[in-house]
Amino acid sequence: MTAEPKSIEGASGAAAEPFAAYAAARVLVTGGLGFIGSNLARRLAALGAEVLVLDNRLPGSGANAANLAGAEGRIAVVEADVRCAKALRPHLEGRHYLFNLAAQTSHQGSMEEPLPDLDINCRAQLQLLELCRAVNPEIGIVFASTRQIYGRPDYLPVDEAHPVRPPDVNGIAKAAGEAFHLLYHRVYGMRCTALRLTNTYGPRMRIKDARQTFLGVWLRALLEGRSFEVWGGAQTRDLTYVEDAVDAFLHAALSPALCGRAANVGGDGPVSLSALAEMLIAANGGGSFVIRDFPEARRRIDIGDYCADDRLLRRATGWRPRTSLADGLARSLAFFREHLQDYV
Amino acid sequence: MTAEPKSIEGASGAAAEPFAAYAAARVLVTGGLGFIGSNLARRLAALGAEVLVLDNRLPGSGANAANLAGAEGRIAVVEADVRCAKALRPHLEGRHYLFNLAAQTSHQGSMEEPLPDLDINCRAQLQLLELCRAVNPEIGIVFASTRQIYGRPDYLPVDEAHPVRPPDVNGIAKAAGEAFHLLYHRVYGMRCTALRLTNTYGPRMRIKDARQTFLGVWLRALLEGRSFEVWGGAQTRDLTYVEDAVDAFLHAALSPALCGRAANVGGDGPVSLSALAEMLIAANGGGSFVIRDFPEARRRIDIGDYCADDRLLRRATGWRPRTSLADGLARSLAFFREHLQDYV
Repeated sequence: MTAEPKSIEGASGAAAEPFAAYAAARVLVTGGLGFIGSNLARRLAALGAEVLVLDNRLPGSGANAANLAGAEGRIAVVEADVRCAKALRPHLEGRHYLFNLAAQTSHQGSMEEPLPDLDINCRAQLQLLELCRAVNPEIGIVFASTRQIYGRPDYLPVDEAHPVRPPDVNGIAKAAGEAFHLLYHRVYGMRCTALRLTNTYGPRMRIKDARQTFLGVWLRALLEGRSFEVWGGAQTRDLTYVEDAVDAFLHAALSPALCGRAANVGGDGPVSLSALAEMLIAANGGGSFVIRDFPEARRRIDIGDYCADDRLLRRATGWRPRTSLADGLARSLAFFREHLQDYV
Repeated sequence: MTAEPKSIEGASGAAAEPFAAYAAARVLVTGGLGFIGSNLARRLAALGAEVLVLDNRLPGSGANAANLAGAEGRIAVVEADVRCAKALRPHLEGRHYLFNLAAQTSHQGSMEEPLPDLDINCRAQLQLLELCRAVNPEIGIVFASTRQIYGRPDYLPVDEAHPVRPPDVNGIAKAAGEAFHLLYHRVYGMRCTALRLTNTYGPRMRIKDARQTFLGVWLRALLEGRSFEVWGGAQTRDLTYVEDAVDAFLHAALSPALCGRAANVGGDGPVSLSALAEMLIAANGGGSFVIRDFPEARRRIDIGDYCADDRLLRRATGWRPRTSLADGLARSLAFFREHLQDYV
């Protein structure tokens, strides 16, 4: 596998045309120093958008100044907290699109500190919608929701009609945050869409610990020559490569059919955690892992197997994942091999 | 129809035995100056419980000092806001039961002032659960939830398996507040139950305006010799007489089968709004109403018809509504005829 192309944006040239609307568009990305937010901001800038990133560099989040390295001249950054209405308000006026990714993402963290999770993932979202309604009701909004809100699935793959039954504080808060977005479409006609993301991975993810994705700590251990732990191993997940998630956001904001809807985002088909571990080691050209029992505190909020039915998104927008799991893992390893010092 | 018995408590003598557990129990009722809360607090005091009411007398809520008239010596009242952790904490220690009824109840109000609704109905609930977990994890908690969280029903009667699809900010906030209660049972083993109430009516309801129930303004108009407005008229609702709702709370806190569950509370069968208006006029011995179109702002968050399937509660506890709609309306009129000056 080759290293990551110098310009990720270059890799998506084929898909640039459907995104012509972003050329010269004024776009706000909350959580834009984070993993998905920064990849999205970089793509938007490459598409010619005027991009403002708003991020509070929340400790424990994916925020990392290195995520915008090399793009500083093309992306403006405001350090502000999405919970602070006063800080947000001036940045909403005159914007065409709001990609709303600021979040607390750790499930276990949401159980340890539930109120900050609720304030960020739910209360701040309602406040943000109220602000948009007041100062810029025409803005197109895409909210980063999560498959976590389904809880332990009744059936696989999970479509959007599956009951919403969040297993932890984070899931409850995100479900409410999402519901507010859809409500503001229904009642006020605002252009809001939610994407229910599954495990997303790739360059610029948090690898310091497992607060964002378990894959981060696996990858870090490999690159540091240590073996990593797989909890359980038989559970299946589907994983979205971050550039495919970015495509989904770009499509969603432009799709009238998704207005007022929540749509799943999946990936390259389901894989068991132990098979994923083996693929990662193969992509790395070596390494090892050990299987551990699921820790009790995690078991109580675990969702078991998951696989997304994302046909709604595919049909509405033509989106499909363009990166195979093997390729995505190789690109992730190549990125972090080159930039390890910025992420540990 | 005779006037309300001097002591409501006397009317429920037959049901006192299943509630023997409350004799000498130390009980906290949040929102205990409100409509259902005050009726519950009075019953608990009559059952021999040591009752503390916590209420912040929120403007626009059902809080009314007159609601505890005649029971002042038997019920302690603390003026405190359920949103304030510091104020709550000392009152949770050593309590056996917490009836958690403090709420913002107006659907339209939740659209006009969404953040206070979220703070009371959702954030304060999570904070309260965290406090209980810290200082009194054995406490038995019953949360006043609402059928509003189902949104516009897919089928009637609505059972607890019906999708949760709240139609307004109030519904989203209450659904999250309920979910936190059930989560704290699932993860921490806390004894939490939620009751999904439908339109509840009876003595001590707010009749000043429609913030609590449309029936309040109807009844007030009748007693003041004015005709009242029925919006639409064909929609069906089921109504719970407040003493039956009180019974449901008392049963729920004592039912291990309902621990960690949300259970519907229904009433004396469905009735259309226009039939209800006619029953109210018959119970009053005269009066008139006019049918009006549903106002646009209300129509967008209206849930259409509703009727509860409350077999879960009935089977788990033996609860059943003991008051017919005709009797309940007559008792309500009698109460407010006698106490009108305290409620307008």
